[in-house]
Amino acid sequence: MNTKRDVNVILQQPLNESESEPDRAPKKSRLEFSSNDGDDKRNGLDQFVAYPIHKVNRLLEPGPILLVATGSIANKTHNIMTMGFHMMIQHEGPTLVGACIGPWDKSYDNLKKTGECVLAIPAVEMLEKAVDIGNCSGEDVNKWVNFGINPVPAPDPASADGSWARKGGEEGRARAPLVGGKNVIANIQCTVEDRALVARYNLWVLKVTGVWINRDMDLEYGQGSRDPADDDDRVGGGKRRKREMKMAHHRGDGRFVIDGKEVDLRDRMVKWKEFQD
Amino acid sequence: MNTKRDVNVILQQPLNESESEPDRAPKKSRLEFSSNDGDDKRNGLDQFVAYPIHKVNRLLEPGPILLVATGSIANKTHNIMTMGFHMMIQHEGPTLVGACIGPWDKSYDNLKKTGECVLAIPAVEMLEKAVDIGNCSGEDVNKWVNFGINPVPAPDPASADGSWARKGGEEGRARAPLVGGKNVIANIQCTVEDRALVARYNLWVLKVTGVWINRDMDLEYGQGSRDPADDDDRVGGGKRRKREMKMAHHRGDGRFVIDGKEVDLRDRMVKWKEFQD
Repeated sequence: MNTKRDVNVILQQPLNESESEPDRAPKKSRLEFSSNDGDDKRNGLDQFVAYPIHKVNRLLEPGPILLVATGSIANKTHNIMTMGFHMMIQHEGPTLVGACIGPWDKSYDNLKKTGECVLAIPAVEMLEKAVDIGNCSGEDVNKWVNFGINPVPAPDPASADGSWARKGGEEGRARAPLVGGKNVIANIQCTVEDRALVARYNLWVLKVTGVWINRDMDLEYGQGSRDPADDDDRVGGGKRRKREMKMAHHRGDGRFVIDGKEVDLRDRMVKWKEFQD
Repeated sequence: MNTKRDVNVILQQPLNESESEPDRAPKKSRLEFSSNDGDDKRNGLDQFVAYPIHKVNRLLEPGPILLVATGSIANKTHNIMTMGFHMMIQHEGPTLVGACIGPWDKSYDNLKKTGECVLAIPAVEMLEKAVDIGNCSGEDVNKWVNFGINPVPAPDPASADGSWARKGGEEGRARAPLVGGKNVIANIQCTVEDRALVARYNLWVLKVTGVWINRDMDLEYGQGSRDPADDDDRVGGGKRRKREMKMAHHRGDGRFVIDGKEVDLRDRMVKWKEFQD
């Protein structure tokens, strides 16, 4: 397996500092992505910090392509797949997400058995790997090993409602792993809330029990409205800035659109101020 | 009402040709969006062309913010709202979409009564208007008039399965209008397929019965992989190119991320070739 892969990507901007190059007119660039997330220094839970569950819509509502981890490390059933069919259903009380996972996926059996999964958001640097993960089956290969991705033993969910504690014991320990690596934007721990539409449409209603976001991510830029002019003080030698982590959105046929610029219209959201805290 | 509004938008690139300005380093730009879609020359169905229903995932899977039209022009119940909670459920047989519309929306009553709606995708030029539409109620104002949006009488859905014809008659004519205007990327006609999860989660399963896309949209770029180097022949005075129409993705709190560059990974999609036709 190659640890570095060349890819043809149409990009005007470098994806991150290590790949930066002088500004120039848009054209086809040949960039290298590191696909060797397994060798990072911080490769476990220490890469992530807990994030409020009721704010998970800030991660999922933009519609990123997702990785889904199911099964359990303990009994070696853990699997990982790629998914584009998902939505926010409810902000809180509880926080609910919808996801389509069908019987053609090995993850379907895992989800059916354990009733839980982790939704991970890959940053663009991990996009090729995410596509490759979606184009082979856990029946044939161990995708974690094959793609050099570290399955992180699930921590106690960053849950406020205590539902996990009530489950408790071994059942709690056999839960789905988080997806490790510096290029993972967030890990969202879920339990199955409602199977009513699984038989008809493979549509699972999931309850979010914990959210973990990448500690290196610049929330004010990657999920916010930092003025790009602020970049100037990088030149001035100030403290190292956190990364802007860009999501990838599947266009349905193997083409992906990457997060571009941000428009801040919070002042026009007069009806929904409760979602701006 | 202002027909032009100034907005603070962080954008590196001009949104379209009429707003182009010299290249420069990223910084806060002050751009003008036309918000007067109602005065366009092509303001009705002639702005749109039929698109294959089974390819609607190419429009919805990236996760754009949507406008939802419900009710009927005939009896003046037509309303329009903004929505970020939606997903693809099934590619075809039939093509299904999930959407959350709750009783706090006037559109909920319309949807309940008529069992149909139109999902429209606004391009970024229409984003401010989309936010404003989402921050007032059809109970208080006629949003179509207030925001200068033309409700287009629904055509026969571009449906291959004939289900509309079978409904027929007046019931068919009282259907939800399309959202007119040059800045609307697509209109997706839907009927309610399943209400099983409406009571519990306000989650509607919708069947797509027709898709209409903006005839000015450059599908190969706005939904494809045109090489930006091709832009050069605009200078050479060739025929006028179609527009790249960018979607906006809601970050959940009034901030939006706009479509950036595209990554074409179709050659790695070895398992899902049927979705690349």
